[in-house]
Amino acid sequence: MDGTARIERAIEAALERSAGRGSPPQLATAMRYAVFPGGARVRPRLCLAVAEACGDSEPKSSESMASAIEFLHCASLVHDDLPCFDNADSRRGKPSVHMAFGEPLAVLAGDALIVLAFETLAHGLPQAPGRLASLLMTLARASGMPSGIVAGQAWECEPNVSLSEYHRQKTGALFVAATVGGAIAGGGAPEQWRRLGECIGEAYQVADDIKDLVADRAVLGKPLGQDAANGRPSAVGQLGLRGALTRLEGLLSEAMEAIPPCEGQTELRGIIRAQATRLVPKELATAAA
Amino acid sequence: MDGTARIERAIEAALERSAGRGSPPQLATAMRYAVFPGGARVRPRLCLAVAEACGDSEPKSSESMASAIEFLHCASLVHDDLPCFDNADSRRGKPSVHMAFGEPLAVLAGDALIVLAFETLAHGLPQAPGRLASLLMTLARASGMPSGIVAGQAWECEPNVSLSEYHRQKTGALFVAATVGGAIAGGGAPEQWRRLGECIGEAYQVADDIKDLVADRAVLGKPLGQDAANGRPSAVGQLGLRGALTRLEGLLSEAMEAIPPCEGQTELRGIIRAQATRLVPKELATAAA
Repeated sequence: MDGTARIERAIEAALERSAGRGSPPQLATAMRYAVFPGGARVRPRLCLAVAEACGDSEPKSSESMASAIEFLHCASLVHDDLPCFDNADSRRGKPSVHMAFGEPLAVLAGDALIVLAFETLAHGLPQAPGRLASLLMTLARASGMPSGIVAGQAWECEPNVSLSEYHRQKTGALFVAATVGGAIAGGGAPEQWRRLGECIGEAYQVADDIKDLVADRAVLGKPLGQDAANGRPSAVGQLGLRGALTRLEGLLSEAMEAIPPCEGQTELRGIIRAQATRLVPKELATAAA
Repeated sequence: MDGTARIERAIEAALERSAGRGSPPQLATAMRYAVFPGGARVRPRLCLAVAEACGDSEPKSSESMASAIEFLHCASLVHDDLPCFDNADSRRGKPSVHMAFGEPLAVLAGDALIVLAFETLAHGLPQAPGRLASLLMTLARASGMPSGIVAGQAWECEPNVSLSEYHRQKTGALFVAATVGGAIAGGGAPEQWRRLGECIGEAYQVADDIKDLVADRAVLGKPLGQDAANGRPSAVGQLGLRGALTRLEGLLSEAMEAIPPCEGQTELRGIIRAQATRLVPKELATAAA
């Protein structure tokens, strides 16, 4: 079974458990709405690819970790879209969760997806208790304080922001959890895989900043992106557009070099190369230059 | 060291970790504000008391579980107080978290406290991996879907509510986690302790419903409580005031009888008796009758 099919199956199984006997039906529906149809499932695919490169000796462990990371990502999207943050009406081409279900169920759907991430680990790893402790800590560090995605989002409420801390926590943390967690779950050496997650995470964030500005210029004909409008820290704001594009290229090369020698090295490089072309569509990069 | 001191020390240590290097300072302050000064810390005290009754063979495990349960409780209070739910201006005699720090930081403080609960387990139990899997599952079940406190809160968004499901999830779940989790952490037989948690949890919720109505009558001189005003399901609404008081007494007697034979039985009965007198102040019960 390929990675995508394994991920979708594991995510489906976890959501079915969460909608079990006694559950309030609207919250169950809102959670499913937040998770399906998915985006590119980049983080869980990366997690599984690293686990496979390390031998994937406990497939249920790597699938659990991959799904858990995706649930945390979906939870963060639901809460980031709330009126008190981005006030986003739509997400992935459909109304955002609070637009479709109301604000109370959006808050609770995010909460429940955070918990589901940890429940998924607990459910998938009782046979590998040694790995459970490391994976649980990796997941908790990537999601909470002092350095996970929740911490990252909180920098938007601070008067003085470190751009690198903000990027590392808000975007990098889950990519690091994907590579480090994939290595733990697959039986590899986790620290060898950290730098790869850091590079991909930072590349994603820089690419997002670029897209935000360029798409805005192209579509709306105004020079101010949503990041600037929302007062969010941005790589483009700090480095300029050309500087940000250079930084992005540098990060992607570094990511390629950060892959440790392993059996699936060629395949992993392929995944990263494919993602890289998706990060900034060529016409946008050209238009910007 | 007595139970309360052990709990406060463990909670303090976890909050210090969460405010570590690189953390956004305002979120760290908001989390601390949500946790200190605490309420009666009833759930973690119950957890430790059960662990002690079971021998408390791994004190760090029981302290971690007790703190984790308290963090989940505090998280639920922060999110329940939000404008889209109870819109509560104050809590424990001071402004609620969103009144003091704004809505974005209140959403994030709740999120971060949920994660901190799981991080606390991961941090405290690497030496007891066998117990970690059971405690993690117990904690996840008590907090998320289909039957934890988040599920319980979501019943307030449903058109048709089962009062017993609502109470069992919203209040009972964390009390059951306290007794069952205390037994797991302490090395006892968890299922023997489930009924005790269920009875105390339901008693708490019924007592809350009674206080809500009676306090309102006394203070505001109107027959409608906040539960009714907010459209919340209520034992008083379903059973009437006399019926609710009878139910409360029945639950407390059942709780006493549900304590399995153990060394600390007398002490545990004492804790429950002390809590029972706090549940409904005598003058309110009398005024109501």
